[in-house]
Amino acid sequence: MKNENEKAWSGRFKEEIDLVFEKMNRSLSYDIRLYKEDILLNRVYSEELTRLGIISKKELELIKNGLKELESDIAQKGLSIFSDKIEDIHMGIETLLFEKIGDAAKKMHAGKSRNDQIATDVRLYLIKEVKVILDLIKKFLTILLKISENNIDAVMPGYTHLRQAQPVLFSHYIMSFFFSIERDYERLNDSLKRISIMPLGNAALAGSSYKLERDYLQKNLGFDSITQNSMDGVLSRDFILEFLSNISILSITLSRYAEDFILFSSEHFGFIELSDKVSTGSSIMPNKKNPDSLELTRGKTGRIIGNFVSLFTMLKALPSTYNKDLQEDKERLFDSIDTIKDILKVNIILLENLKINKEKMKNAIDPSSFATELADYLANKNVPFREAHKITGKIVLNCIENQIYLTSMTENMLIKYDLNFKGIGDNWADINQFLNKRNLTGGTGIKSVKDQIKKARKILNDFKKT
Amino acid sequence: MKNENEKAWSGRFKEEIDLVFEKMNRSLSYDIRLYKEDILLNRVYSEELTRLGIISKKELELIKNGLKELESDIAQKGLSIFSDKIEDIHMGIETLLFEKIGDAAKKMHAGKSRNDQIATDVRLYLIKEVKVILDLIKKFLTILLKISENNIDAVMPGYTHLRQAQPVLFSHYIMSFFFSIERDYERLNDSLKRISIMPLGNAALAGSSYKLERDYLQKNLGFDSITQNSMDGVLSRDFILEFLSNISILSITLSRYAEDFILFSSEHFGFIELSDKVSTGSSIMPNKKNPDSLELTRGKTGRIIGNFVSLFTMLKALPSTYNKDLQEDKERLFDSIDTIKDILKVNIILLENLKINKEKMKNAIDPSSFATELADYLANKNVPFREAHKITGKIVLNCIENQIYLTSMTENMLIKYDLNFKGIGDNWADINQFLNKRNLTGGTGIKSVKDQIKKARKILNDFKKT
Amino acid sequence: MKNENEKAWSGRFKEEIDLVFEKMNRSLSYDIRLYKEDILLNRVYSEELTRLGIISKKELELIKNGLKELESDIAQKGLSIFSDKIEDIHMGIETLLFEKIGDAAKKMHAGKSRNDQIATDVRLYLIKEVKVILDLIKKFLTILLKISENNIDAVMPGYTHLRQAQPVLFSHYIMSFFFSIERDYERLNDSLKRISIMPLGNAALAGSSYKLERDYLQKNLGFDSITQNSMDGVLSRDFILEFLSNISILSITLSRYAEDFILFSSEHFGFIELSDKVSTGSSIMPNKKNPDSLELTRGKTGRIIGNFVSLFTMLKALPSTYNKDLQEDKERLFDSIDTIKDILKVNIILLENLKINKEKMKNAIDPSSFATELADYLANKNVPFREAHKITGKIVLNCIENQIYLTSMTENMLIKYDLNFKGIGDNWADINQFLNKRNLTGGTGIKSVKDQIKKARKILNDFKKT
Amino acid sequence: MKNENEKAWSGRFKEEIDLVFEKMNRSLSYDIRLYKEDILLNRVYSEELTRLGIISKKELELIKNGLKELESDIAQKGLSIFSDKIEDIHMGIETLLFEKIGDAAKKMHAGKSRNDQIATDVRLYLIKEVKVILDLIKKFLTILLKISENNIDAVMPGYTHLRQAQPVLFSHYIMSFFFSIERDYERLNDSLKRISIMPLGNAALAGSSYKLERDYLQKNLGFDSITQNSMDGVLSRDFILEFLSNISILSITLSRYAEDFILFSSEHFGFIELSDKVSTGSSIMPNKKNPDSLELTRGKTGRIIGNFVSLFTMLKALPSTYNKDLQEDKERLFDSIDTIKDILKVNIILLENLKINKEKMKNAIDPSSFATELADYLANKNVPFREAHKITGKIVLNCIENQIYLTSMTENMLIKYDLNFKGIGDNWADINQFLNKRNLTGGTGIKSVKDQIKKARKILNDFKKT
Repeated sequence: MKNENEKAWSGRFKEEIDLVFEKMNRSLSYDIRLYKEDILLNRVYSEELTRLGIISKKELELIKNGLKELESDIAQKGLSIFSDKIEDIHMGIETLLFEKIGDAAKKMHAGKSRNDQIATDVRLYLIKEVKVILDLIKKFLTILLKISENNIDAVMPGYTHLRQAQPVLFSHYIMSFFFSIERDYERLNDSLKRISIMPLGNAALAGSSYKLERDYLQKNLGFDSITQNSMDGVLSRDFILEFLSNISILSITLSRYAEDFILFSSEHFGFIELSDKVSTGSSIMPNKKNPDSLELTRGKTGRIIGNFVSLFTMLKALPSTYNKDLQEDKERLFDSIDTIKDILKVNIILLENLKINKEKMKNAIDPSSFATELADYLANKNVPFREAHKITGKIVLNCIENQIYLTSMTENMLIKYDLNFKGIGDNWADINQFLNKRNLTGGTGIKSVKDQIKKARKILNDFKKT
Repeated sequence: MKNENEKAWSGRFKEEIDLVFEKMNRSLSYDIRLYKEDILLNRVYSEELTRLGIISKKELELIKNGLKELESDIAQKGLSIFSDKIEDIHMGIETLLFEKIGDAAKKMHAGKSRNDQIATDVRLYLIKEVKVILDLIKKFLTILLKISENNIDAVMPGYTHLRQAQPVLFSHYIMSFFFSIERDYERLNDSLKRISIMPLGNAALAGSSYKLERDYLQKNLGFDSITQNSMDGVLSRDFILEFLSNISILSITLSRYAEDFILFSSEHFGFIELSDKVSTGSSIMPNKKNPDSLELTRGKTGRIIGNFVSLFTMLKALPSTYNKDLQEDKERLFDSIDTIKDILKVNIILLENLKINKEKMKNAIDPSSFATELADYLANKNVPFREAHKITGKIVLNCIENQIYLTSMTENMLIKYDLNFKGIGDNWADINQFLNKRNLTGGTGIKSVKDQIKKARKILNDFKKT
Repeated sequence: MKNENEKAWSGRFKEEIDLVFEKMNRSLSYDIRLYKEDILLNRVYSEELTRLGIISKKELELIKNGLKELESDIAQKGLSIFSDKIEDIHMGIETLLFEKIGDAAKKMHAGKSRNDQIATDVRLYLIKEVKVILDLIKKFLTILLKISENNIDAVMPGYTHLRQAQPVLFSHYIMSFFFSIERDYERLNDSLKRISIMPLGNAALAGSSYKLERDYLQKNLGFDSITQNSMDGVLSRDFILEFLSNISILSITLSRYAEDFILFSSEHFGFIELSDKVSTGSSIMPNKKNPDSLELTRGKTGRIIGNFVSLFTMLKALPSTYNKDLQEDKERLFDSIDTIKDILKVNIILLENLKINKEKMKNAIDPSSFATELADYLANKNVPFREAHKITGKIVLNCIENQIYLTSMTENMLIKYDLNFKGIGDNWADINQFLNKRNLTGGTGIKSVKDQIKKARKILNDFKKT
Repeated sequence: MKNENEKAWSGRFKEEIDLVFEKMNRSLSYDIRLYKEDILLNRVYSEELTRLGIISKKELELIKNGLKELESDIAQKGLSIFSDKIEDIHMGIETLLFEKIGDAAKKMHAGKSRNDQIATDVRLYLIKEVKVILDLIKKFLTILLKISENNIDAVMPGYTHLRQAQPVLFSHYIMSFFFSIERDYERLNDSLKRISIMPLGNAALAGSSYKLERDYLQKNLGFDSITQNSMDGVLSRDFILEFLSNISILSITLSRYAEDFILFSSEHFGFIELSDKVSTGSSIMPNKKNPDSLELTRGKTGRIIGNFVSLFTMLKALPSTYNKDLQEDKERLFDSIDTIKDILKVNIILLENLKINKEKMKNAIDPSSFATELADYLANKNVPFREAHKITGKIVLNCIENQIYLTSMTENMLIKYDLNFKGIGDNWADINQFLNKRNLTGGTGIKSVKDQIKKARKILNDFKKT
């Protein structure tokens, strides 16, 4: 026997839904997040149904006022406002509206389906959130730029394979994240045109049988365009996959930055120091100050890629068109949105309060990281580079074995290895000279970094216009 | 300036934690799930500290009574009982206990760290949940067995490449899931010995400096063994990865079953019918009855593999030993536990209420799926199998082109293709004969399936003993 | 003791490399694929070194001629041309060139590093391959369009939850893939600007110390722009992740299409038939004709997402800048390129040879899939839609229980359920009427589909211009 | 028109296979790896067919001799021995055998299918490879043990959050990997019983129609048991998923070790030094010595998890029973086998040649990592631990601000913070005292580590017996 709490779809059913299944089937606890979008959609859609004569002007007034009240009710009371029997936000809003205004509420659903409705709600929500994320990225980039400017001439060891390779400017190092994350911004920005496509009017799968003016709906809901095919419109979730992969790629960049900063703020490097604001201690070891903010930034990369994999796997080999599997899309989407926003916010604070130890950076430079200068000197004297490299390698090895700093090798000492070193001078390993030789575009010379900052500022300004 | 809400670790800190970071850092909203395990741990650990003289007997009484009250408080009030400033369940319980009993609560943490404490809590919790999941799998297997027994002689088309291949017994088909899931059970059961290892006493990373009798703690907490190395004990999460992959493998088996059942219950097959209890309808199309329970079973596979990937990625290249990244382990673990339990519960109900349409199955068998019988007949007459296959292929092609059922080919008609068909009789495509020829172990003959059921019952009984 | 086969970097080393490690370290077997790009790079770069006076004009001639010969040697002989001791394609080409032309070959490497060289090679290669893939997608889209046009008025059942929902035009169904894959094309096309950025001149990490004109190099290598920061330039692999995720998203669309087509070509649907050209049989069952091409299309989705996950995991938490882990990027990238090209090529052939059974599609439409028409009729008579849905649900249930086709319900029979059915006529379930009511943008009406085709052709034409 | 190169299944086909599809469909290039297993299977299976009278004794002799020759032919010539038209290793062997011995070769396939044959081949191959991997793990563990023994009393900083936490023994640190990897061994060993199940006799899906004695086949092929259900037998790939996840979990442990060792061998730590044998240099920077072996160990983790995800995704929602998608299982399986073997081999060499700098480790210990000793001292004097922690935190902060080493705080200085410090002595931060206090099971005391080594040796010995 069926009970009183009828579902919107239960006309043809004889038996009541099982409670365990009902719970698994219910999405309200997470799709409640879409209530503003769903209310907006219902308002605009009801206007259109009024134009078509399905809803009267009087009923429309009731609906609009009712929805307005409802929006503030839900804002205040959240989930607690809904009965346990409510499946999802669409039925939740319709049911509460019916309790407020009666039969008019039952008319709103003509010509639409939850299939096109949920796709429209999610897209509306995502447009909003992408813009928030883009703003946070801009803030993050702005601070990177400021740090570079404020520390334009600080030098530090540059690494490959986590071994000292050549010295670089700290500002150059910081700008490397700017240009990487700037592409992450662009990519996300490019995706907006594929998110901002309205499915409303696609109904269950075949398109609505009502003479809806979809352009009117689009304009009033704030979409850029509309879906051109109803079966595509109700099923496709490529916009979610694209968002999740874009966030994944951004999170990889941030995990690299976090890894570096965890290393560079450790006792063994000491290049930077995190503020107490974004650090924690140990409950057992009173000496500890831990970079939890950076570790969570790094660790949450797992969560973000996992979300992408979840939805990818869910979508794999789904037959046309809507399948209930698609219900799984929301929680993982919302989780990635929340996670990346938290990460960005915390790291903005971290960067704003970062202390930089220029002395420690400078002193940490390993003399042998000037070795390439020797090889280049020979190559400029017409020694084939491979020979030059080999000769220098021997000098390095000899320094290691005799525990001599490479930089303390004088011209006279060098000449013993190769006569072409003549003229190099004793001061060949001067850091300023090293930097000055690297002012080509993208190089670590001061002039080059100033150019980078100039270009970066232009990019940021252009972002602000879009 | 620091505020009043001091952290357990804030002795060496001068600045207050930033609110955004504090929120990201807080784990209470999900690790509250471990409150029973944490209370048990604190009780048993306090007994041990009493033995060591760190806590007095009187204080122990206070602690034990306080913890008992607290357990029932949390059971009733949940999260709302904790202040917003509480980082995690450990500090939550210690803080509330302090409010109840004063200074004695501050003594419980001597010689342990949150590093070994959380690892111990999670393991305790997982042991409990694995046993629940094992029980649900047993129930699922028991119903599969019952369905096979009740429909032992129903025949259906067997498929490869989703094309009819050869007829099979429906009971044989159902038993194929039994033996697959039975291995999933075994695998999970094998993992228990690697979950049930106690890290308590490993402290932060170097081992406790208190003379704890770890065997006493193990026995009273209910573990099988203890960690042999403290650095391994506080960092290793292989037991979580193993659990998540075992659940993933189980979910793959269930996704295959769900895919089949969605197909087989569709209009185009009609072999089985789902109960209304585990179906839903459409808000727009009154005709629909949808297999949402199976679709969610299939779709949630994505969530489960995503959880594994999340933790795998998080753990990749973590340096020794505890890192804050590890905080990410719990939400994904809990999510996989909840998801697989829901899936198993719903499908137990689904199977208990499944309707089987034997007639439709039988009638759906494509006559051409008896073709192998012809090839085998020739092979038994000493025609090399490859030749026999080729001859039969020509007969099939001819039947298709002339729109004749393969099964209606008489001996006389067959002889025209090859004289060796002599003696095959007109009734060569008899289903019973087909089945009788397949009674070797694992075959689809009735006798074989009865043997399978017998072995399966023995396996189930052996499970019950463990 | 070191042996004769010296590495380019072995100056400072005393011991010889272990053979097992050397084998793992070697990338030649797969990076040989980049030989054309590496030769082009060396040619253009040597011209620049000539301008700088590092290489003489005479040497440049030797280099250019030598490289030209080498290109044709490798094209003919492949891997066999290289010694076992060669680590990678860069050293392979330099070594072979040295054997041809002597010392001049050793000069080419001045001012560049394998770090910027490999990043440049891979980007050059990927630009080329993305264009090939874009062309294949265009071909695939063109055939979809042709199929839609040629079968504009065929009707078929439309599905949600793999249950018949409402009838749709087959051409509409096919166009749903057009619009989905068209976005996949756009996304890939958008990514080109982030691939076509030249790292050459970034050297190891700090930028070259030679006064390279990077704009000259860019123009002659055919890049759109150059990296603005050398540390970003040698490390960042976001362009590979973006490519792999774009291919993943495309593969999801194709897996959905493959799933549908496997179903629709099975005995139980029979809507379409695959050509023998893209099918295989069974070695044991002479009756089988299997859709292997579609199954591989579906199955290879796993490979493609796995490749994305591999590189994502590899990149997670890598410290700045180049690390050997990055060597792993190539095999997975190449594999995804090959796989998606194969999939597209095979499915182009499949679609070109597809047979469509219009009669079977039409006859398969379940009468109850017209139920929404009844609900809509009532809603247009001012019955609140929810009531209308409920009334129709009862009619559907009654038809099922009494085994009556819903479409055979006459006006008189319907009126017994609700008086508002008056005037609906006995022919209310006419397919043409059903379609005509769905000519809004994106709907399944014939006029709507013709509009879709027109828009689609415009999109294809616009693609051709880019 | 069909051509001469007929497939084993082409009887019912009219059109020739398309070349592009044929190439994608072909698996020989990778399943050639299974030739020994396939030959063994055919030999044993032909013996059984001889018992059944399908094959004559004379034919059996021909087959056995032919297969023997073939095995050595393939061992020598590899892929080049097969025609381009050969689909897979099964058809390859049968075809070559036919060329050698004629019609008898065409009889071998009676009563089996490529479905059960490939499942049997892959399982046989995997059993062999798992044993090889288990042996390599044992070697790796043996060297860890030796390193611990040889450096039993070396002290080093212990880390949490990559911040110095407390000192530990280097031997203790090394043993932490022993116990972690020992579980990885166990897990893989547990899986063997689920790999060693023979599907042969399951034929295409319904079981063979020949009266095969499967127990005979099992015994002679070397399996532990046989599949109990033919549909399960030909489809299930859980044994591959289990293997891939077990290898993934092992690779995570190894990625953590690699990360540590990369850090510890860097200029900033200097605790260990890698041999030249497993290091490489830079083609531009003559100073570099890079830990490529460790970086590849870390980076290949991505490949290994990607392989698991590939197959998981491929298997998701596959309908019963064999589907061509399953062809994808082999390449990823083989890749994970090769990768983990390479990783283990290279790291065995790395560990055998590792240089340990005891002095650097010891000198690197940060004095403040003794802070917990102060808190514990107070707790033992009945100060609640939380108070003790707070007091110590203040002392640490004071030391930092005044740039005093914590370890240089004398009893008199400490007493100013809390009178309970009375009696602690000036030498409270002695490392030996620190270690001696941590001899509980699993602690970092020397006695404890000696116990660990003893237990470890017993575990290794027990392994050797299995």
